[in-house]
Amino acid sequence: MAGSTYGSIFRVTTFGESHGPGIGAVVDGCPAGLSLDEGFIQKYLDRRRPGTSRYTTARNEGDEAEILSGVFEGKTEGTPIALLIRNKDQHSKDYSELKDTYRPGHADFTFDEKYGFRDYRGGGRSSGRETAARVAAGAVALKLLSELGIEVNAYAKRIGPFEVPDGITDHTEALNNPLGLPDRDTYEKASEYLDSAAGECDSYGGVIECTVRNLPTGLGEPVFDKYDAELSKAVMSIGAVKGFEIGDGFRAAEMKGSENNDPFRVENGRIVKETNHSGGTLGGMSDGSDIIFRAAVKPTPSIARPQNTVNKDKQEKELMIKGRHDPLIVPRAIVVVECMAGIVTADMMLRNMSGRISAVKDFYRI
Amino acid sequence: MAGSTYGSIFRVTTFGESHGPGIGAVVDGCPAGLSLDEGFIQKYLDRRRPGTSRYTTARNEGDEAEILSGVFEGKTEGTPIALLIRNKDQHSKDYSELKDTYRPGHADFTFDEKYGFRDYRGGGRSSGRETAARVAAGAVALKLLSELGIEVNAYAKRIGPFEVPDGITDHTEALNNPLGLPDRDTYEKASEYLDSAAGECDSYGGVIECTVRNLPTGLGEPVFDKYDAELSKAVMSIGAVKGFEIGDGFRAAEMKGSENNDPFRVENGRIVKETNHSGGTLGGMSDGSDIIFRAAVKPTPSIARPQNTVNKDKQEKELMIKGRHDPLIVPRAIVVVECMAGIVTADMMLRNMSGRISAVKDFYRI
Amino acid sequence: MAGSTYGSIFRVTTFGESHGPGIGAVVDGCPAGLSLDEGFIQKYLDRRRPGTSRYTTARNEGDEAEILSGVFEGKTEGTPIALLIRNKDQHSKDYSELKDTYRPGHADFTFDEKYGFRDYRGGGRSSGRETAARVAAGAVALKLLSELGIEVNAYAKRIGPFEVPDGITDHTEALNNPLGLPDRDTYEKASEYLDSAAGECDSYGGVIECTVRNLPTGLGEPVFDKYDAELSKAVMSIGAVKGFEIGDGFRAAEMKGSENNDPFRVENGRIVKETNHSGGTLGGMSDGSDIIFRAAVKPTPSIARPQNTVNKDKQEKELMIKGRHDPLIVPRAIVVVECMAGIVTADMMLRNMSGRISAVKDFYRI
Amino acid sequence: MAGSTYGSIFRVTTFGESHGPGIGAVVDGCPAGLSLDEGFIQKYLDRRRPGTSRYTTARNEGDEAEILSGVFEGKTEGTPIALLIRNKDQHSKDYSELKDTYRPGHADFTFDEKYGFRDYRGGGRSSGRETAARVAAGAVALKLLSELGIEVNAYAKRIGPFEVPDGITDHTEALNNPLGLPDRDTYEKASEYLDSAAGECDSYGGVIECTVRNLPTGLGEPVFDKYDAELSKAVMSIGAVKGFEIGDGFRAAEMKGSENNDPFRVENGRIVKETNHSGGTLGGMSDGSDIIFRAAVKPTPSIARPQNTVNKDKQEKELMIKGRHDPLIVPRAIVVVECMAGIVTADMMLRNMSGRISAVKDFYRI
Repeated sequence: MAGSTYGSIFRVTTFGESHGPGIGAVVDGCPAGLSLDEGFIQKYLDRRRPGTSRYTTARNEGDEAEILSGVFEGKTEGTPIALLIRNKDQHSKDYSELKDTYRPGHADFTFDEKYGFRDYRGGGRSSGRETAARVAAGAVALKLLSELGIEVNAYAKRIGPFEVPDGITDHTEALNNPLGLPDRDTYEKASEYLDSAAGECDSYGGVIECTVRNLPTGLGEPVFDKYDAELSKAVMSIGAVKGFEIGDGFRAAEMKGSENNDPFRVENGRIVKETNHSGGTLGGMSDGSDIIFRAAVKPTPSIARPQNTVNKDKQEKELMIKGRHDPLIVPRAIVVVECMAGIVTADMMLRNMSGRISAVKDFYRI
Repeated sequence: MAGSTYGSIFRVTTFGESHGPGIGAVVDGCPAGLSLDEGFIQKYLDRRRPGTSRYTTARNEGDEAEILSGVFEGKTEGTPIALLIRNKDQHSKDYSELKDTYRPGHADFTFDEKYGFRDYRGGGRSSGRETAARVAAGAVALKLLSELGIEVNAYAKRIGPFEVPDGITDHTEALNNPLGLPDRDTYEKASEYLDSAAGECDSYGGVIECTVRNLPTGLGEPVFDKYDAELSKAVMSIGAVKGFEIGDGFRAAEMKGSENNDPFRVENGRIVKETNHSGGTLGGMSDGSDIIFRAAVKPTPSIARPQNTVNKDKQEKELMIKGRHDPLIVPRAIVVVECMAGIVTADMMLRNMSGRISAVKDFYRI
Repeated sequence: MAGSTYGSIFRVTTFGESHGPGIGAVVDGCPAGLSLDEGFIQKYLDRRRPGTSRYTTARNEGDEAEILSGVFEGKTEGTPIALLIRNKDQHSKDYSELKDTYRPGHADFTFDEKYGFRDYRGGGRSSGRETAARVAAGAVALKLLSELGIEVNAYAKRIGPFEVPDGITDHTEALNNPLGLPDRDTYEKASEYLDSAAGECDSYGGVIECTVRNLPTGLGEPVFDKYDAELSKAVMSIGAVKGFEIGDGFRAAEMKGSENNDPFRVENGRIVKETNHSGGTLGGMSDGSDIIFRAAVKPTPSIARPQNTVNKDKQEKELMIKGRHDPLIVPRAIVVVECMAGIVTADMMLRNMSGRISAVKDFYRI
Repeated sequence: MAGSTYGSIFRVTTFGESHGPGIGAVVDGCPAGLSLDEGFIQKYLDRRRPGTSRYTTARNEGDEAEILSGVFEGKTEGTPIALLIRNKDQHSKDYSELKDTYRPGHADFTFDEKYGFRDYRGGGRSSGRETAARVAAGAVALKLLSELGIEVNAYAKRIGPFEVPDGITDHTEALNNPLGLPDRDTYEKASEYLDSAAGECDSYGGVIECTVRNLPTGLGEPVFDKYDAELSKAVMSIGAVKGFEIGDGFRAAEMKGSENNDPFRVENGRIVKETNHSGGTLGGMSDGSDIIFRAAVKPTPSIARPQNTVNKDKQEKELMIKGRHDPLIVPRAIVVVECMAGIVTADMMLRNMSGRISAVKDFYRI
């Protein structure tokens, strides 16, 4: 159970190291008949691409995904969709110093402890590059969801010390500024701060918020595979994420029941909630309100400052990481969160279809 | 994929509704040769039992788990361990008002939306009672871990507005006071507050913190099934949990890389981290520091106050929930968090065993 | 991955040893709204019951399954259906001789080799008794299929040296004679033979044939989880089964392509096959013809004759198995094959529902 | 659950259509530290290659697998091993006649019924070409097993009407003659027959036998995931396989218990079986004897004769399949059976490691 697969019916398996021949994903269980081409996937990969602003690394990876299988004459066939992204600059750097030295905040040490050795070039399997495969696969999920009328949107809720006021979720704005913030005012403050701090050679974290809109009710399974539990796993499995909360999240812990409960009422013949403290789920199943969750992203561990660390031979040493690194991972991680939410939601949509005998009879026209 | 099973090698399947004949769990994949009896499991069930203090409901469920299989002459056989807890007062109440009415903050509405009907007696499958099955199964995991020298301890970090200062993790104290707080001072304040607020007929949330100590390094799988991602899913799958964070969690989002990175050093011939902002994992694998994570628990949704809601026929109505309910779910949820962490950790311990060919050769003496 | 669970969406987990407190199963993923009660399950358990004829052991186990969960007011709830069969005569025998001695043809030796020890009373987890749990769970699958108009029928195709001529599949007759043969003539011959051989203290094998009728086309997944591959696994997992074939099976190996291919034609506006050499699947998916497969059942390994064997301490010895044992396992195994085929088919019916985007849109009324 | 993944710990996911850009596999869960390169995999792909004799098609596919990930400096890293085989002649043929016409004995009809359309070029996902991906993945499994001293060997047991006498398992001979028969005499007869029948434009089936030698005892899980049950599924999932048997298989059905039971005895201090009617498993677990199983392979459905069939629009028509096709699939399927047996066995080897608490303690040096 090496854990490179996520999902039950809509299943994504990723592969690849940052400096091997390529990375990619196999999506099994996508329904047949969905229109899909490489151009659609490319739009998501472009959002993850580095070098799109002064806040992300200047390397131009220019990732392109090739569809190796599962699509015929522009439509998915019901068979596995294999996606391959070639690594372009796999031999370009000198990684000899990192071969035996453990970078603080990275998986170098734990990977060696688990497997005895590792591909030390740029993080190998634990590189942030692995998320490009998630994005390619996630784009397939998001295409499926868009056909079903469901919208998934992520954006930065916080950049370092600057947080977007509650209620602002303008994802058009978020797509337009290089920090992915849905609020122009917060963007300007954060931008000014980052510019002035450029000389510090430090890095910054943030919070990503994501909404899922226009969902049917009842998605998610009642016990272990609750919708929010699966979202949590999927999002926490992104390298730099250290926390997850849905709805009021940690603030709910400080509230009273009379404040936190969302009263039901009837609106246009539908049962709706008056408020959405729950963040769109009750008992792990979607309740008709928007899903809204947040992920805490730690500051990029690679910083251009001397750091105390050790090497494989248990010798203490000072490490100075060379090369350019994102001082801020949040802008590029936004689309990764969106894609993981898409994968979870697509899976939940398909899992939900066999819940009632009446649906089984309808399907088989009995 | 109805989602009643958790785990890959150490697998737990739960079953049961709050007012059916019984609830229980099947634990498959527990190694053979572990000493186990019903008395050990009982200690954990007792910690979850209601009626142990004035802060939890006065019902005396007195749950007892019967081991139906998998244990022979006091030792696990390697076969499924089935655990059954009979429901004692399954016919005692009048639930007719709840049959068609949706309680705010509960799964009544979403369950009906998903399946078309539900066992309306006391929450059915979505009742907090389901967690008793998790505790019985979790006790088996914790027994396995204790044989391996690993300690899992959960306690209340926050009760309503009162938070335990950082660094206080005295779980002996936590076991001794009825709020599960590891700090006497915080306990006294919280206790006084709850007593004075008793007339409000409201409920309170809190935060549960959990540590896992004495773990080997390298537990957890590098991509989707990271140790922290699995902990997150397992804990978020507990009904009232709305947020999860590991290490500095959401605070990491506000930190700089130079503050958040944990430098490595050598201590007594072992590589250790100087600090533990990461909460014990790097790249999803255990890094040798203690695992420390927190779960945000919402206030109990059942409150003895009139609430606005609707019924199945889409009529708005006022609901007054009768009977006694925990004003505070945190004290009883502590052991549930501990048990879920135990299940995840046991599974990760077993999953980790086939990671290297040298280990396979050692096992088969080749 | 201790392997006590079968199925992807319709999932069955069994538990229990032959002489522990009980055996049973948890069925997760059964759609909500199916009428189900213990009486329906009992009819299947009765067919497996020993002591119903002179060809099966005289013990009267009288198994009864209690539904512990998942059914409310006579209908399945969509939640796990836990089924418990108490072991009645768990302390009645003296198994001390078998404690250390390995019975030929049984799992005693391999179980000890795998786990280091075993519950030696009556075969423990590897007892034929484990199949009672499969029957209880299979009855749920068969109930679901019957609501969908699908019929699953197994019967004896061969008893020792007597084989039913091809084309005779009269399962009413099969239910009426104690050998489960669909042909009166074969029954009489086999019956006479077994009576005359009673003094030999030997045992006999046979072949069980099973048909699945009125299936929709397209069930089964194209690559690893082909319908016939899953049937094969499910049937081969029954203790005494040593071979599986579908359609012409091993005879197909001797045929030419021009003989073995089934030509298509149109009948009443439907595409049908003129012949059914394939046994109802093409490329692992149901092709509209009846599914027809066979399982080879070895002779009961417990025989009342002295046998050469060894004990745990590697001493050779002669073993004389005491007590009464079925000289013929086939009649009781018929319903087990039928139930396993039912479980596989139910799972395939549910798995097939999310194969096309048009079906997803229909389900969600988009 | 689209079923393109096989295995629990050693997990293989295949992808690809016969005439898309490529086919391949992702192997997740292979232990780190195994020496592996493309040359090793190539030897297995070469054995599956068509055009190696006059009995197989003259197309020269010349498949080559590229290792995309999971191997660093010649050793597996513990991460997913992605293998890609480009399709070379994907645009070379005119498949327009097959676009709407259903070939008898192929999956064209069932695939359309399941998914609504299909890649009609050369069988698409249901092409025999899919097995090249299994071979590439299987080679990794066989490399792992060879490091553990385990040998897996398959060969033809029957070609059309000619069967190899029992006891002849000379796999060196089998590798040397183009029919894969372990017996020169049978080879000469079969060869002469096939030559003389060449003008018939027909095809032939056969039986493949496979042995697994030098296995530890206790492999396989006691209930659903028995070693033989998993072998059965894995082998039955190969397109043309219609039957599976282990040990005496269907002949066991005609035997008496006193003939079929394998007595135990002690040899050189080890417990062994005197005979091997069981085929190497007892209760689904390896018993120390060689594993020996057989698979029935149907005659190639593509024959160069007019056949009656229908098209998608339910019109009856006569089909004449053009192009060259293997009159005999058995020789090329041998390595596929060997590879599937290798995948199952590798998985069982890894699954078996966490069965006892003493092994867990040994691993963690507790």
